Amino acid sequence: MSVDLLVQKINEKGNPSVAGLDPKIDYVPGYIRKKAYAEYGQNLKGATEAIWEYNKGLIDALYDVVPAVKPQSAFYEMYGIHGEEVLHRTISYAKKKGLYIILDVKRNDIGSTAEAYSKAYLGKVDIDGVECEPCGVDCVTVNPYLGTDGVMPFVKDCKTYDKAIFALVKTSNPSSGELQDLITDVSHIYEKVAECVNKWNEGTIGKSGYGAVGAVVGATYPEQATTLRKIMKQSYFLVPGYGAQGGGAKDVVPCFNDDGLGAIVNSSRGIMCAYKKGDWKEEQFAEAARAEAIRMRDELVSVIK
Amino acid sequence: MSVDLLVQKINEKGNPSVAGLDPKIDYVPGYIRKKAYAEYGQNLKGATEAIWEYNKGLIDALYDVVPAVKPQSAFYEMYGIHGEEVLHRTISYAKKKGLYIILDVKRNDIGSTAEAYSKAYLGKVDIDGVECEPCGVDCVTVNPYLGTDGVMPFVKDCKTYDKAIFALVKTSNPSSGELQDLITDVSHIYEKVAECVNKWNEGTIGKSGYGAVGAVVGATYPEQATTLRKIMKQSYFLVPGYGAQGGGAKDVVPCFNDDGLGAIVNSSRGIMCAYKKGDWKEEQFAEAARAEAIRMRDELVSVIK
Repeated sequence: MSVDLLVQKINEKGNPSVAGLDPKIDYVPGYIRKKAYAEYGQNLKGATEAIWEYNKGLIDALYDVVPAVKPQSAFYEMYGIHGEEVLHRTISYAKKKGLYIILDVKRNDIGSTAEAYSKAYLGKVDIDGVECEPCGVDCVTVNPYLGTDGVMPFVKDCKTYDKAIFALVKTSNPSSGELQDLITDVSHIYEKVAECVNKWNEGTIGKSGYGAVGAVVGATYPEQATTLRKIMKQSYFLVPGYGAQGGGAKDVVPCFNDDGLGAIVNSSRGIMCAYKKGDWKEEQFAEAARAEAIRMRDELVSVIK
Repeated sequence: MSVDLLVQKINEKGNPSVAGLDPKIDYVPGYIRKKAYAEYGQNLKGATEAIWEYNKGLIDALYDVVPAVKPQSAFYEMYGIHGEEVLHRTISYAKKKGLYIILDVKRNDIGSTAEAYSKAYLGKVDIDGVECEPCGVDCVTVNPYLGTDGVMPFVKDCKTYDKAIFALVKTSNPSSGELQDLITDVSHIYEKVAECVNKWNEGTIGKSGYGAVGAVVGATYPEQATTLRKIMKQSYFLVPGYGAQGGGAKDVVPCFNDDGLGAIVNSSRGIMCAYKKGDWKEEQFAEAARAEAIRMRDELVSVIK
C-alpha cells in the first residue's frame, strides 16, 4: 500500500516531515534568477527555469533527510504552460531521488470529471487501448465539498494503482472555520467530513494500520486535531501550518498517534527560505535548507517522543 | 465589468447557455483520432492533437450561436503536459473568436497559494518587475470550502483585472447534499455559502446589476435553486446538470431572474456528442453540435419567457 511506503520512508529517515516545494519567484536566490533571465529571457520561461534550478538544488540537499516532498501546483500553474512543464520535471527528478511525492492540487469535481482528475495525477489514461501515465505521483490532496461521488473516483484509483489521497478536513487558515466549524446537529462540519473520510477509507487499510485516505489537518488548530485524531484512527494526517503559519512543534503533537506515527508535518517557506535567515549567503540556499530540515526533524522527534 | 461583458454577449446571441468543452477521447470522432495517432503516435501527444482538431471544429461551429465556452480543466490535465498545452491553445482560439471563457478549474487554497491560482488564470504575474499573463481567461470556478481567505485573492483580481468567478454553492451531483445540505442553526450549508457569496460580491456590482462573484447552482435541484436565487440576487448562476445529468429545461427556470437574466446554463456532452444521436455521420460532428446548441437555445428561451 502507498501509505505503507510513506510510513516506511518516514521510519527510514526517522523524520515525520515533508518539504513543501512552493517556489515563489522571490524565494529563488537572485543569482539563479539573473542567470535564467539572461539565458531564457525575463518572462514565464525564464522564471520557471530559475525555479527548476532552485528546486533541483533543494531536492539534492534534502532527499536523504526528508521522506517526502509536496509540490504546490498553484506555484507552477501561475507560470502557465512553462510552469506545468517544470512541475512535471520536478516530480520526475524527485521520484528518481526516491522521494515520496504528495502533489498538492486540492482537486475536486464530480463523476467522470473527478475520474479525469484522478487519472491525471494518480492513474493511467486509456488511449484507444494504449495505457499512458500522465504524471504518476504517489498521492494528491482532494477537496471534499462535493461529497462522496467527488472522492470515490480517487479512492478507486488508490486501490487500482496503489496510491493515496489526503482529503481537506480542517485547514490551517484563519477563515477555515466559516464553513468547517459550523455545527450541524451535534457535530462540526469538519467532524462530518472526518466521518466521510472513515467511510472512504474502508477497504484500503495497509500493513501499517493506515489506509489510502488521509486527512489535511492544520497545525494551527490543535484542539480540533485532538478530536479528529480520535475520529480518524486509520488515516494519516498531512499537517500544514507549522512554522511560518504560526503552528509550533507542540501544536502538531495531537496529530500523532501514541506510536509516533500517523502524521506528516509540512514546512515550505521555513525550509526553502532558510538561507534568508542568519548568516547564510544566497549561494548556500541548499545547505541552509538542509540544516533547517534537520533542525525541524530533530524538533519534531523530540516533542513526539 | 466582466459580468457585464457576459450579459452583453448573452443578449447579443439571445442565448443564456454555455458550451462545455470536456473532450473525453471517446467523444472525438474516430476519423480524427486515427489521423492524429498516425501523425503523432497513439499516446498522450496524439490524443491531445485529436482533441485540438475536435475543439477547433466545435468552436468554429458554435462561436456565433453561444456567448461562452467552458473548458473543463480535468479533461486536459489528464493528458499531462500535452493536455495543458492544448488547453491553452483552445483558450486562445476561443478568445480570438470572441467567446467569453469560463475555465472550470474549481481551484481552492489559502492566502498566497490562492493568490497564485488566481494569477495563474485571471491575473498577471510579476517577474522581477516584468508583468506576464500566464493564461488570461474571463472567469474561473472556485471551491469555497476554505472560506473567505481562500476566495478574496480571486475577488481582488476580479477588481484589478476585470474578471469574474463562480463559487460552488449547490453542485449538481447526487452526493452534493452530504455536506452542502447539512443544516446548521437555521439554514443549510449551501445557504451559508450563498451568504458568503453575497459578502464576497460586495463592491463588484456592474451596470448589469450583477457582480463579479457568481455561483454554481445545479439544474438537478430546482427547489434549492429557488431559495438561492432569492438569497444571491446580484450573482450570476452557472448552471450545470442540464441534459445528460437529468436536469430539464423547466428545472433551470428557478435559476433565472424575472428579466430573463441571471443564469447561464451549461451543456457539455449534449452538444459535443450530438452527432452520436440521430442520423449524423461522424464527419458532421460540428454541424450536429451547432444544431443542438440552437435547439437548446430555443428551448431555454421558450421556458424563460
